[in-house]
Amino acid sequence: MTLHWWQQPVKAIDADAQQAAQQRQSQLTKPPGSLGQLESLAIQLAGLQSNANPVIKQCWMAVFAADHGIARQGVSAFPQIVTTEMVRNFARGGAAISVLAAEQNARLEVVNVGTAHEPGELPGVIDQRIGEGTADFSQQPAMTPEQRLQALDAGRDSVQRALDAGSHLYIGGEMGIANTTSATALGCVLLQQPAGELVGPGTGLDDSGIRHKATVIDAAIDRHNIDPADVQQVLDCFGGFEIAALSGAFIHAAQQGLPVLVDGFICSVAALIAEKLLPGTRQWFIYSHYSAEPGHRAILDALQAEPLLDLGMRLGEGSGAAVALSLLRHACALHNGMATFEEAAVSNKDAEDD
Amino acid sequence: MTLHWWQQPVKAIDADAQQAAQQRQSQLTKPPGSLGQLESLAIQLAGLQSNANPVIKQCWMAVFAADHGIARQGVSAFPQIVTTEMVRNFARGGAAISVLAAEQNARLEVVNVGTAHEPGELPGVIDQRIGEGTADFSQQPAMTPEQRLQALDAGRDSVQRALDAGSHLYIGGEMGIANTTSATALGCVLLQQPAGELVGPGTGLDDSGIRHKATVIDAAIDRHNIDPADVQQVLDCFGGFEIAALSGAFIHAAQQGLPVLVDGFICSVAALIAEKLLPGTRQWFIYSHYSAEPGHRAILDALQAEPLLDLGMRLGEGSGAAVALSLLRHACALHNGMATFEEAAVSNKDAEDD
Repeated sequence: MTLHWWQQPVKAIDADAQQAAQQRQSQLTKPPGSLGQLESLAIQLAGLQSNANPVIKQCWMAVFAADHGIARQGVSAFPQIVTTEMVRNFARGGAAISVLAAEQNARLEVVNVGTAHEPGELPGVIDQRIGEGTADFSQQPAMTPEQRLQALDAGRDSVQRALDAGSHLYIGGEMGIANTTSATALGCVLLQQPAGELVGPGTGLDDSGIRHKATVIDAAIDRHNIDPADVQQVLDCFGGFEIAALSGAFIHAAQQGLPVLVDGFICSVAALIAEKLLPGTRQWFIYSHYSAEPGHRAILDALQAEPLLDLGMRLGEGSGAAVALSLLRHACALHNGMATFEEAAVSNKDAEDD
Repeated sequence: MTLHWWQQPVKAIDADAQQAAQQRQSQLTKPPGSLGQLESLAIQLAGLQSNANPVIKQCWMAVFAADHGIARQGVSAFPQIVTTEMVRNFARGGAAISVLAAEQNARLEVVNVGTAHEPGELPGVIDQRIGEGTADFSQQPAMTPEQRLQALDAGRDSVQRALDAGSHLYIGGEMGIANTTSATALGCVLLQQPAGELVGPGTGLDDSGIRHKATVIDAAIDRHNIDPADVQQVLDCFGGFEIAALSGAFIHAAQQGLPVLVDGFICSVAALIAEKLLPGTRQWFIYSHYSAEPGHRAILDALQAEPLLDLGMRLGEGSGAAVALSLLRHACALHNGMATFEEAAVSNKDAEDD
């Protein structure tokens, strides 16, 4: 049996580069460990980039947009048309991720993997629509196996463009009305938790809306009654095109050795799926932030993730990762730019005064 | 009785600008509240800058350096000469704050308010030495009232230079071997806590070193036996020149309406002293990070502070604030650069699909 591309092994981390970076950190003019996570970040990036002096000049950002049939069940505070409208907003520079990408001097591409409406031709938007949104998973599987493969391929293609452009880091984002419902259902099945443990307001449901959303998810999980270990089938039943595309992107990044800065709840679910489809993928992940969406913590725990930021963000689009990118850049700047004790003629710890 | 300059009232926050910013946030193309603390930061900055569209183009960073007589009691992992050596390292661009200031395109000045050794003439270093370090507070008050006034003035002068340069934000930092001992003693007196509650490793003491440091602090507090409400005397007894200078800087910033981004443990102690010397000063503070130095939490609680970052940093120099500056800039960029629902023709919450 031939393996799919997304079943090929991930690239190994460069332990030598990591060790060289660790060594350099111990020589910089500061008390050992006093830069906290900025030290471990630089060391981690050194191992991922196979470079004792890691850099993030070129950062690639990709937002995958798609609609969800489950939106028909009244699980979102916003109407479905917003997915398409936001694709236009991304292209015109008015969305949060557009502003952050410009500020961070990052390349931003939008990949339309299946909006329900046709947004028209837009600069920077790639049309890879797999369907007019997924099917309503309260009634039937969200997608066919063929659609899932197309979505994984769309993610791979995006990472390939990032690699071709010489990117040092990959950020994936998503836009899709009702996609916290899809992500929550996926998380519930993979972690074998009832919806009540993971469900949250998404874009802004009130308490009764959240209860309804949980009921819809629990009923759908009962109805499909699938083996949680069959991750491909789990993704078919409850996934979104954009979530599957993110999983494909993360896997290809891990195979090709491009570090991934993971955004919030939905991207973390895609990251967990990627890790379950191809164990080892998560070695290539850096986690940007704790989302305010309540289910995020359980997903992060499953990934043994320790995000950098906790700012109460819950927007998606890759916005949390785009903010955390600054921390990675500071970590690299400090690592590469600070003087060593020897260079600066500064006395080290436990030296004696003259 | 004439008031000192640092007893004149602080500037009032502009509630109208704050309200206009709040209004704008509610119209941007995102679910309300979904940018978390980046929203409240933009609104807070609008009130502080009296500008519904706050900006941080010019950021001023000042590192105050001084030595501490208490270093003689063996309370630091590094020798005292390091304060002077680090002043040279700041000037030559090799220290963490130098690297971050360059990366952030910020103006960095170093104010020598009293190193024990003469660092020589250095570019970007202002010589305002009040003495060759403070006196050993285990034996006598660290400074005289006249020295305290000189230190407060040195802080004021720095903020005045920042204002003259048209700065939008002020970051203070510090360097001084043994200054966590001074800051811990100040915190213990002001919060009426024993040293064991606040003491920590500073630059890297081991457990027995930390116990010794606590013993030195408790004994000194017993010896001086002063009224905790007499903040000027508390500062004289236990303060450092750089800590008093930071307090003076923060007060002048609050009087002149320049927002302050507060760094870690030592700067927060200076911020608490500023607030106690001139109530209302803390309205002008934004808090950058939780330091790994254990006493920081108690000081932050006393200021009712909620810092932005928690990265395990404990370097000082203003480095945590210099990192958090990126978050403030992202908050401003999003606030000013995102499209409104109307501009982008995006449907708002609870709209109906066609």
